[in-house]
Amino acid sequence: MLKNIRISKDNASVIILDQSRLPNTEVYLELKTAAEMYSAIKELQVRGAPAIGIFTAYAVYVLARKIPDEITSIDEFYSEVEKLGNYLIESRPTAVNLSCAVNRMLKSARQSDRSEALDAMSRECHLIHEEDKKMCRAISEYGLTLVKDKDGILTHCNAGPLATSEWGTGLGTIFLGKECGFDFRVYCDETRPLLQGARITAYELNKAGIDVTLICDNMASIVMKQGKINACFVGCDRVAANGDVANKVGTSGVAVLAKYYNIPFYVFCPSSSVDFDCETGENIIIEERDPEEIKSMFFKEPVAGNEIKCYNPAFDVTDHNLITAIVTEKGICRGDLGTALKNLLL
Amino acid sequence: MLKNIRISKDNASVIILDQSRLPNTEVYLELKTAAEMYSAIKELQVRGAPAIGIFTAYAVYVLARKIPDEITSIDEFYSEVEKLGNYLIESRPTAVNLSCAVNRMLKSARQSDRSEALDAMSRECHLIHEEDKKMCRAISEYGLTLVKDKDGILTHCNAGPLATSEWGTGLGTIFLGKECGFDFRVYCDETRPLLQGARITAYELNKAGIDVTLICDNMASIVMKQGKINACFVGCDRVAANGDVANKVGTSGVAVLAKYYNIPFYVFCPSSSVDFDCETGENIIIEERDPEEIKSMFFKEPVAGNEIKCYNPAFDVTDHNLITAIVTEKGICRGDLGTALKNLLL
Repeated sequence: MLKNIRISKDNASVIILDQSRLPNTEVYLELKTAAEMYSAIKELQVRGAPAIGIFTAYAVYVLARKIPDEITSIDEFYSEVEKLGNYLIESRPTAVNLSCAVNRMLKSARQSDRSEALDAMSRECHLIHEEDKKMCRAISEYGLTLVKDKDGILTHCNAGPLATSEWGTGLGTIFLGKECGFDFRVYCDETRPLLQGARITAYELNKAGIDVTLICDNMASIVMKQGKINACFVGCDRVAANGDVANKVGTSGVAVLAKYYNIPFYVFCPSSSVDFDCETGENIIIEERDPEEIKSMFFKEPVAGNEIKCYNPAFDVTDHNLITAIVTEKGICRGDLGTALKNLLL
Repeated sequence: MLKNIRISKDNASVIILDQSRLPNTEVYLELKTAAEMYSAIKELQVRGAPAIGIFTAYAVYVLARKIPDEITSIDEFYSEVEKLGNYLIESRPTAVNLSCAVNRMLKSARQSDRSEALDAMSRECHLIHEEDKKMCRAISEYGLTLVKDKDGILTHCNAGPLATSEWGTGLGTIFLGKECGFDFRVYCDETRPLLQGARITAYELNKAGIDVTLICDNMASIVMKQGKINACFVGCDRVAANGDVANKVGTSGVAVLAKYYNIPFYVFCPSSSVDFDCETGENIIIEERDPEEIKSMFFKEPVAGNEIKCYNPAFDVTDHNLITAIVTEKGICRGDLGTALKNLLL
């Protein structure tokens, strides 16, 4: 399986597989400065909520080690770590795993001296990584109870190994099913504008020998209508207390189609992505991204002129009533999702 | 308004806007020879079923005028015209409007001498053009009764002036509305894989000073949910007797979303596109196109490897029960669309 994030042996850098250049180029980046790390998140060289959390934890630790020795007091040291954490959080304000990882790292840094703080931070970032691996495995095992051999599965965006640490959330069930001898037929939405479905999901699944067919986002309706799809699998960026799900733009459209064609729609979600402080999806602020992602980013020449306006929301919110179940590492929530999430996780 | 096809004043050439180079380059081509005209159709410099018909009619007339004077007998002259027509038909053998236009031109050329034949052909090609303008105008006028000032309109693919002669079918209402002082806000689906929405619809609307915002296909759900859309406008390739509509792939998905969000979904359709011999959408065979359109066509580098399978249907079928109304040049069909179409058109 691909190693997408690791800390260097000397603890002076974080090494990532640059996801922005897949599938044509497999290149690893060694990131040493806060600016490089900020840019890696912002430019989607590292992407996927859990992966961003793991990456940020390592990043905070690596950067903390580089705080000049002149800063001797633990309070000043802590305040420097806090500044670094807040700086990284700004790279993708919607990503709750990012701020969560920063907060855990900050909490671990509350020690009586710098050396103890760094030791605790080292343990914490490795722990965050280990927890993620266990979480993905557990989600995948629960997910496998929802499908059967030969099922057709539609995916949107990417919630695979590269978005997490191992297995993935939304795709973990498919990888685990493959290991257990299930033959799935997977249809991947290409997922415009950044094409994570084409560039990453199709790449990961095909690497694992899984039967995968790439489609444009607007073909989800015809493949559902033709009876090719038995279940839809998506990840999530953030889940509100009532079960509304913020995920890659287009997710809500897939959910509406699934409802119309009477196909179950499953959200795979680490419990850390559930934000009980966020009452409903209406409270989730949708990040808008650069119009050039739509007009020119991957193209030989721009497909629309400079004067054409674009609307480029990164996420959308899927109403809880469109979701058949939310699969977490602690169990599966169905029915009244708000109550089910509360009962399972609080 | 853009003049996409016209005959030169001296009747010695057909002048077209080269659609294959839009939106980055606006270049008009003056086509004088049969080979140039053949290539213009083949290379999609002229595209859109009605536009191809109009272009071919002018082309046959221009080329007929160039038949050498030595050919004096009307039979020989007619046989030369026939050869030219058949040659042009070969440029896109499946385009019904093309052979239809050639057949009308040939029929008009059945006169007792060359001079009469050329006069009749001149009238016929201008008539074909005029008929299309009237058809588009009538559809647009009916369409305008369905919307109001300040409405947000979602479009998919392209059914605008460049695909017809003037006005367009699906977009005609928007252009006519603009002339009547309506301010619409139009959201264009980019329409993968060939991006006609980005490259042509957004371009045409922006040129006319209409407020247009380009979105990716998978953003239709969020803009509908946000209340930005009051109506969806699409063209059609073929309508079955029961009102099922074959149109650019993705149309059915937009229709399902519109139903869910309770937004009217309108199909704009020349009556010539209704095929009463085709009982339902299930009888319409969906053409599958080259996977490279999805993986590599417009991109700097391929977005998925050679080994990745694609499914690339050109069209999908929208169930009649998802369609609020079908707007033709003869009136608007609502309710039981099969009965309404029969009552209006048969």
